[in-house]
Amino acid sequence: MSVTDELLRNAESYAASFDKSDLPSGPGKKVAVVACMDTRLSPYAILGLSEGDAHVIRNAGGVVTDEEIRSLAISQHLLGTEEIILIHHTRCGMLSFTDDEFAARLRIEASPFIPRKNVRGFVYEVETGRLRAVGAAA
Amino acid sequence: MSVTDELLRNAESYAASFDKSDLPSGPGKKVAVVACMDTRLSPYAILGLSEGDAHVIRNAGGVVTDEEIRSLAISQHLLGTEEIILIHHTRCGMLSFTDDEFAARLRIEASPFIPRKNVRGFVYEVETGRLRAVGAAA
Repeated sequence: MSVTDELLRNAESYAASFDKSDLPSGPGKKVAVVACMDTRLSPYAILGLSEGDAHVIRNAGGVVTDEEIRSLAISQHLLGTEEIILIHHTRCGMLSFTDDEFAARLRIEASPFIPRKNVRGFVYEVETGRLRAVGAAA
Repeated sequence: MSVTDELLRNAESYAASFDKSDLPSGPGKKVAVVACMDTRLSPYAILGLSEGDAHVIRNAGGVVTDEEIRSLAISQHLLGTEEIILIHHTRCGMLSFTDDEFAARLRIEASPFIPRKNVRGFVYEVETGRLRAVGAAA
């Protein structure tokens, strides 16, 4: 049995106790999260998010390219989100997180497609489980 | 207080009970998930994933562009994942999910950067909580 098959069994359990059929399509908390795809970083667990709360956009490194700008533009223009949370993390195999966070923020702030620039950047410490504001004291 | 501030309080609680400092950087289940950013679709809840299990890649529509190929290539080449799970969903504001799933799968199968083509596509039914194999009977 493949891992996919194993996970499909979990999906059957999820469906069996499903009671969220009335969720609206837009995020209840009006927030979009952009985070690294890293396995140790669960935006749901860290931020206490549930189904219906937020858009979650993820890729290797938590970078912001035209593809992420596309997703964020849809999130804000079509689905009404108002805040953006960027989450990079320590021990990332990608570029240094300060450079990455800076580049990601800069790209969002420069984009004419993202009307609401309420962007805050954080580093998730995989060693401690803490979310640290970028530039803030540890 | 902004929503971001509210979520940061949740992050403090997460850190206070954190006991996962020894997770490896590679996914324990050797799987990468590509899913729509939709708020109703939580890959963790649906598939029963925890921190340490899987890479999670997400964008508006769950599409596979060069950016997702980049993330999947890193996932397989550098971090050893062997299976890919695509999750689109019903009531998506993007293109029809069958077209999207087909295009996403095609793109992965055509890519020279993705050595392991163990790709399976599913549609998450936001009405029922079920994960349905694409093309399978409902």
